[in-house]
Amino acid sequence: MDIKQLGHFYKERLLKDVVPFWFPRAYDKQHGGLLHCFDRDGTVVDTDKSVWAQGRMAWMLLTMYNTVEKNPDWLKYAESALKFLEDHCIDPKDGRMYFHVAQDGTPIRKRRYAFSESFASIAFAAHAKATGNEESARKARHWFDIFTDINFTPGKMVPKSTGNRPAIGLGPRMIAIVTAQELRRFLGDEDRYYTEWIDRCIDDLKTYFLKPDIKAVMETVAPDGSIIDHFDERTLNPGHAIEGGWFILEEARHRGNDPGLIEIGCNMIDWSLARGWDEQHGGLLYFVDVYGGPVQEYWHNMKFWWPHDEALIGTCLAYIMTGDQKYADWHEKIKNWSFSHLQDAEYGEWFGYCNRDGSPANTLKGSLWKSFFHHPRAMWTCAHYCGAF
Amino acid sequence: MDIKQLGHFYKERLLKDVVPFWFPRAYDKQHGGLLHCFDRDGTVVDTDKSVWAQGRMAWMLLTMYNTVEKNPDWLKYAESALKFLEDHCIDPKDGRMYFHVAQDGTPIRKRRYAFSESFASIAFAAHAKATGNEESARKARHWFDIFTDINFTPGKMVPKSTGNRPAIGLGPRMIAIVTAQELRRFLGDEDRYYTEWIDRCIDDLKTYFLKPDIKAVMETVAPDGSIIDHFDERTLNPGHAIEGGWFILEEARHRGNDPGLIEIGCNMIDWSLARGWDEQHGGLLYFVDVYGGPVQEYWHNMKFWWPHDEALIGTCLAYIMTGDQKYADWHEKIKNWSFSHLQDAEYGEWFGYCNRDGSPANTLKGSLWKSFFHHPRAMWTCAHYCGAF
Repeated sequence: MDIKQLGHFYKERLLKDVVPFWFPRAYDKQHGGLLHCFDRDGTVVDTDKSVWAQGRMAWMLLTMYNTVEKNPDWLKYAESALKFLEDHCIDPKDGRMYFHVAQDGTPIRKRRYAFSESFASIAFAAHAKATGNEESARKARHWFDIFTDINFTPGKMVPKSTGNRPAIGLGPRMIAIVTAQELRRFLGDEDRYYTEWIDRCIDDLKTYFLKPDIKAVMETVAPDGSIIDHFDERTLNPGHAIEGGWFILEEARHRGNDPGLIEIGCNMIDWSLARGWDEQHGGLLYFVDVYGGPVQEYWHNMKFWWPHDEALIGTCLAYIMTGDQKYADWHEKIKNWSFSHLQDAEYGEWFGYCNRDGSPANTLKGSLWKSFFHHPRAMWTCAHYCGAF
Repeated sequence: MDIKQLGHFYKERLLKDVVPFWFPRAYDKQHGGLLHCFDRDGTVVDTDKSVWAQGRMAWMLLTMYNTVEKNPDWLKYAESALKFLEDHCIDPKDGRMYFHVAQDGTPIRKRRYAFSESFASIAFAAHAKATGNEESARKARHWFDIFTDINFTPGKMVPKSTGNRPAIGLGPRMIAIVTAQELRRFLGDEDRYYTEWIDRCIDDLKTYFLKPDIKAVMETVAPDGSIIDHFDERTLNPGHAIEGGWFILEEARHRGNDPGLIEIGCNMIDWSLARGWDEQHGGLLYFVDVYGGPVQEYWHNMKFWWPHDEALIGTCLAYIMTGDQKYADWHEKIKNWSFSHLQDAEYGEWFGYCNRDGSPANTLKGSLWKSFFHHPRAMWTCAHYCGAF
């Protein structure tokens, strides 16, 4: 694997294929904030705004501003999203963020969980880094604390279920790790506040979610880490676990290539590729059952864009950190499948959704779920690990 | 179309293919109630119980008991489900039903909406008919009133959204119609109470949900019937609208072939077949966009079992009521596609989920969503309309 060439490839994809699809198209001059529900040619198919997307897109723009070039348009778009978040996306009743708002910011939906807040947090942190704005640094810390408070204080989150089958999830721990990493990167970590959150969450992963005996990363387990033998709790999400794997590798890298963390991160990636890769059609299955049984979620065998983006990052970083050729081989295989099935050669960007056989399931480039985030983040992160930025 | 032969075909399917797959397997001797999460060969893949399924399966068993034969096992299974519903599935805090319970009845999840109650209502009504039990008749009326109270009293249902984009749904109106029809059938309708509910809901359909100018049955509209131009509200569910179509045809039939109702029911079926049938691969798409744009729900292009069951009933009844050859042709086309893609020749019953190209998406025969309901109901209803019972 020619790392330098690979870095150049991903940099070119980011700057010549992905960014030009999204901007200036996404910038909402009328209401502020960023649009993101686009059909393949960029036609707006929904004017609604995802609160996740406002934070995620602002973070991505500011990360490029901080590392690629001081492009004033990127700063302007990001600042518009941050202002929109503050002006429209906070519920005055409890200081939490909404999930889904109309183009003008009218709140449409709030959810039980608190991921809008985590994405706002990393966006404000990147803004603090970009501008030196102390107020943005304060806001980044504020939203991190709201996020962790809701997700980790027992009883704070409105329960989805009755509580008779208590369970804990991988998701909040993974997001806590990556959010804390971003805040530490941009704001520092004098009292080891963010590192301690990372330690706590990695400890939870090791203690409760990783199952070396069956080589599985559970998404949901009982509070004591035992496997709950029902449909939802048996369901694994290989792309998500690979994403978690590279968060751990990033932490290993931050800590001078900590071998224990490298092993954890590589295990998460290895186990999930082995379970999730579709030997018949190629690509990563969205969900698989931990015991190989049928999965209840309808779309379990579809190929979504983001697991492939995460797997590109995971295998790239694992190769760079370990030198193990198997990761270079996996990277090549994932890259080939992804760019031949997800890339839109005509209008740029990746499609989001393929059927199991790799045929396109719809033409959307953006939706309430897909925005300027996973794909540019993968292109940026791979380029970054390969030394291009 | 040879109606007598067709009736025989569906009767045979019901009694020789579907019923033997489910029973006695589904009967939970240990805890009472009915299991329904089965893999293709009948292996139990989850012991949890859907509250919908307890009511739906009991109704189906009792409908067969009332019309096919006085099989004491069917009565026993149904009564076990009814007892389980009463012993375990009612939340003592508010008298509403749960949605999902464990095998022993431990409540796992309750939902905002109140369809568990509607299925309990028809099951108790069918039980009253089967046994003459006045208490069951009272319970059927009680659960109908709980269902309509929650669904039609403004402010009673916990809102999913903020209320800033008010909307009304086709679902509660369709379920109110078919539930009222069942109660009227089994319990009578002296004061026209159930017929008035049906009139009210048909009126809502005509006024708000049916769009003759664009030949569409909307699933969700603004309270004044206008189309809300966003992803979720543009999404049509052709199988669901066809199901609604045959509920209306059944009502037309009950009212001596009321021509106005026949026209409405046939329009719903015609428009939905035209929009939902997949010309490329055959079968009914799960969701389509009212304006032909991309659909945001991931599984929109999958072929589920139940829309095909509903379309068999809809086209069968439309043919019998109108004599129009196009419905015989549609029926044959849907029957051919369904039995060649969904039927499990080895273990009986239909599979539940195909990919767009018709390949199987999983091996489940039952789940929290699929039980002994849509498919046996279609076999029974088609046989019934064809004169077999």
